Amino acid sequence: MKTAVYPGSFDPVTRGHLDVIKRSSKICDELIVAVIHNPNKKSMFELHERVAMIENSIKDLGNVKVDTFVGLLTDYVTSKNVNVIIKGLRAVTDFEYEFQMALMNKGICSEIETLFMMTSPEYSFLSSSLVKEVAVLGGRVNEFVTDYVYDQIMNKLGKGGEK
Amino acid sequence: MKTAVYPGSFDPVTRGHLDVIKRSSKICDELIVAVIHNPNKKSMFELHERVAMIENSIKDLGNVKVDTFVGLLTDYVTSKNVNVIIKGLRAVTDFEYEFQMALMNKGICSEIETLFMMTSPEYSFLSSSLVKEVAVLGGRVNEFVTDYVYDQIMNKLGKGGEK
Amino acid sequence: MKTAVYPGSFDPVTRGHLDVIKRSSKICDELIVAVIHNPNKKSMFELHERVAMIENSIKDLGNVKVDTFVGLLTDYVTSKNVNVIIKGLRAVTDFEYEFQMALMNKGICSEIETLFMMTSPEYSFLSSSLVKEVAVLGGRVNEFVTDYVYDQIMNKLGKGGEK
Amino acid sequence: MKTAVYPGSFDPVTRGHLDVIKRSSKICDELIVAVIHNPNKKSMFELHERVAMIENSIKDLGNVKVDTFVGLLTDYVTSKNVNVIIKGLRAVTDFEYEFQMALMNKGICSEIETLFMMTSPEYSFLSSSLVKEVAVLGGRVNEFVTDYVYDQIMNKLGKGGEK
Amino acid sequence: MKTAVYPGSFDPVTRGHLDVIKRSSKICDELIVAVIHNPNKKSMFELHERVAMIENSIKDLGNVKVDTFVGLLTDYVTSKNVNVIIKGLRAVTDFEYEFQMALMNKGICSEIETLFMMTSPEYSFLSSSLVKEVAVLGGRVNEFVTDYVYDQIMNKLGKGGEK
Amino acid sequence: MKTAVYPGSFDPVTRGHLDVIKRSSKICDELIVAVIHNPNKKSMFELHERVAMIENSIKDLGNVKVDTFVGLLTDYVTSKNVNVIIKGLRAVTDFEYEFQMALMNKGICSEIETLFMMTSPEYSFLSSSLVKEVAVLGGRVNEFVTDYVYDQIMNKLGKGGEK
Repeated sequence: MKTAVYPGSFDPVTRGHLDVIKRSSKICDELIVAVIHNPNKKSMFELHERVAMIENSIKDLGNVKVDTFVGLLTDYVTSKNVNVIIKGLRAVTDFEYEFQMALMNKGICSEIETLFMMTSPEYSFLSSSLVKEVAVLGGRVNEFVTDYVYDQIMNKLGKGGEK
Repeated sequence: MKTAVYPGSFDPVTRGHLDVIKRSSKICDELIVAVIHNPNKKSMFELHERVAMIENSIKDLGNVKVDTFVGLLTDYVTSKNVNVIIKGLRAVTDFEYEFQMALMNKGICSEIETLFMMTSPEYSFLSSSLVKEVAVLGGRVNEFVTDYVYDQIMNKLGKGGEK
Repeated sequence: MKTAVYPGSFDPVTRGHLDVIKRSSKICDELIVAVIHNPNKKSMFELHERVAMIENSIKDLGNVKVDTFVGLLTDYVTSKNVNVIIKGLRAVTDFEYEFQMALMNKGICSEIETLFMMTSPEYSFLSSSLVKEVAVLGGRVNEFVTDYVYDQIMNKLGKGGEK
Repeated sequence: MKTAVYPGSFDPVTRGHLDVIKRSSKICDELIVAVIHNPNKKSMFELHERVAMIENSIKDLGNVKVDTFVGLLTDYVTSKNVNVIIKGLRAVTDFEYEFQMALMNKGICSEIETLFMMTSPEYSFLSSSLVKEVAVLGGRVNEFVTDYVYDQIMNKLGKGGEK
Repeated sequence: MKTAVYPGSFDPVTRGHLDVIKRSSKICDELIVAVIHNPNKKSMFELHERVAMIENSIKDLGNVKVDTFVGLLTDYVTSKNVNVIIKGLRAVTDFEYEFQMALMNKGICSEIETLFMMTSPEYSFLSSSLVKEVAVLGGRVNEFVTDYVYDQIMNKLGKGGEK
Repeated sequence: MKTAVYPGSFDPVTRGHLDVIKRSSKICDELIVAVIHNPNKKSMFELHERVAMIENSIKDLGNVKVDTFVGLLTDYVTSKNVNVIIKGLRAVTDFEYEFQMALMNKGICSEIETLFMMTSPEYSFLSSSLVKEVAVLGGRVNEFVTDYVYDQIMNKLGKGGEK
């Protein structure tokens, strides 16, 4: 597998995402973490902030780079001459949705394969949405994200300096 | 089975819906495709457009007709003196939701039975939402809907003439 | 729907099965309850006993008859000039297995449709296997089967007369 | 188990919730029904109305009391010196979501245990959302809630006096 | 919750079981780990060996005791004047089966409640069957069971002394 | 991805397996189809027959080879200096079991990653067991396997020459 794309919103990147990134990077020559820019969807972090948080977390991984895209994932993947998408799977709900997306993507472009990797059990409950929901309610989320991302969340919520 | 009702939003009708319509029409005397009019839910197509797209697709099916309804499905079905609802099933998420709805409908009107039919595997990933999502992002969806519906989607998105 | 086939082992027939039989009989002209004879599978009751227990339970249903078959379900259904199979669905495990069987049957004979009906919630946990397992361990299963079937189970277990 | 917390929106409380409350109250010394106050989420009933409807339904249960909370469930539970959360489970979708929440809560506060209780089969399809959806469409929901709650729904919908 | 019963085959007890035992013991006055003796089911370990392995693992838990039973779980639980069964849940397959059993048990004895506890994520894949399967094939299972249990497995497989 | 292992019983190889083999072979340098030899499990075909049927089907795929192994999959994979296992996923039941196996394998050898690939929808219901079950009952399975495999099944069942 020369190059693979790991797409997502990463709003923000969690330790669950980083687990998939690290493990994926070991089985391909190059991994592109592709951050979706969806102008119609409200996010906590701006696109460049989401990119910065990932870049901060992957400094030690030589063969991983971060990119952004707008529009259809299959168009982006094709434009990069890549034919493999990597997705993390957590649970049945994930599975059903990802199954549907993988088949739809294959219907749109039959050359592209989606490969699924189980997230490690200790991150099986983690999602960006839950992290944000808990943080907004004042809960401590420092175990679920890196220190750098934690600081960004605190800043965004006007709680800079708390830990 | 004299008459059965196949309800849905059909915004727009997909090849997956048509698969269920065709197969259902063979096992009942009459099939009513009942398009839900929900004034509170935003749709891509107006009610009459959704009806027109279905009617265009079922011209060869003598015992299928299209109708619309507002309000409670069980009220509509009862008003038609029908006691069978047909639903397509794709996957587990569908199943759970449809299970809940079927039981709720039975709780409201115990005379009405809901029968489920598996969508054919080649359409198991298809949904109107996915078709719209892909089309809006510029993806080609012509394999997932009829030519007529495809043209309607392109017109709606201001891309008439593209193919 | 002229005629439909409701297949199963019915070893023995439970109130869950009877619920499906009663409700199905209302939406088709004739319902054939088809008892599978599988010489390689051990059953608690002989084929003729399983048939007798169903017949005893459906005396009031004029359009239901009981039949037996050996071999492939699709062959049996075709031989009867029927194109509809009815199955009860209880839960996700059922769903997955039945999904697979329905598609396989459609692969073997594309003319045959399988329709699924949710079992009523109060029987959603019932299965012949569970009834037998509980009865063998000395548990009371009289709420899960008809009185006649209960007596047959007690006789089979050498507990005739207990109630 | 000294005290347990049963949290929820209860907008409004259904017979399914009451089933869990009654059964839970028998296995702990005290049960606190904790109504979530989420200022960002639109509800049909005000917080005090939701509390009143529960209180009306539990008059006969001596060891159950109703409380409200805002913010993080784990913070609330800890503030009450409680370490057990009770949740009702209906189906797989519930299960996945509740699994994720239970693990997240345990990640936030490892002392708190979440215990799950199956809702009785006859309520397995019930949810506050479905009740509201059906009531808004003019369907009769009096079997799914208590008489008192039914009246409140009718009043809220400007249909007081109907039954 | 005065006393609860945690039933199982425990052939052998895994770290996943111990996780549930430890956490359950904190929320009830007494926990009875009830080892099923099923004469018709082949097990790797004799009943007394399975009991010994559990007893060795719970020495520090003052309010946990081990017992054995034969026959129906609900009969055993009733004979102990207990009305709460604790079960661990790992995944959807577990969920479906346990749901069915919990409802069946409630059908047999309506006074008994089954409470479910999620196994900790790091043990979410563990089962006695998998441990045995891997051990028989020569795989190292020492991370999945206690040292004492590991030695018993090695002895049973004629590999005593290996580590 | 240099080399990946696709393990299974392949008793016999189906078009669903071949779909996964073909698609996997495009995204790695070398694919090893590893046939499990389990002396304790009864199979329809001998190990060498199962290998021959796969080899016959992959003649056009230059970078795929067939191998056999006995014992633990992780031991075999490690002995080949490979760190990627490929599995096909069909449905939720698959998912749960494969999830458990993938985590167990990772527990045994943390260097090995399991990647999952959705089987194409048209094969989503196919399994070797179903093919055998249908063939034994006299059903036609020629659409589900290659011609060569079909002939082997017919020979095995003493029906050589039928088609």
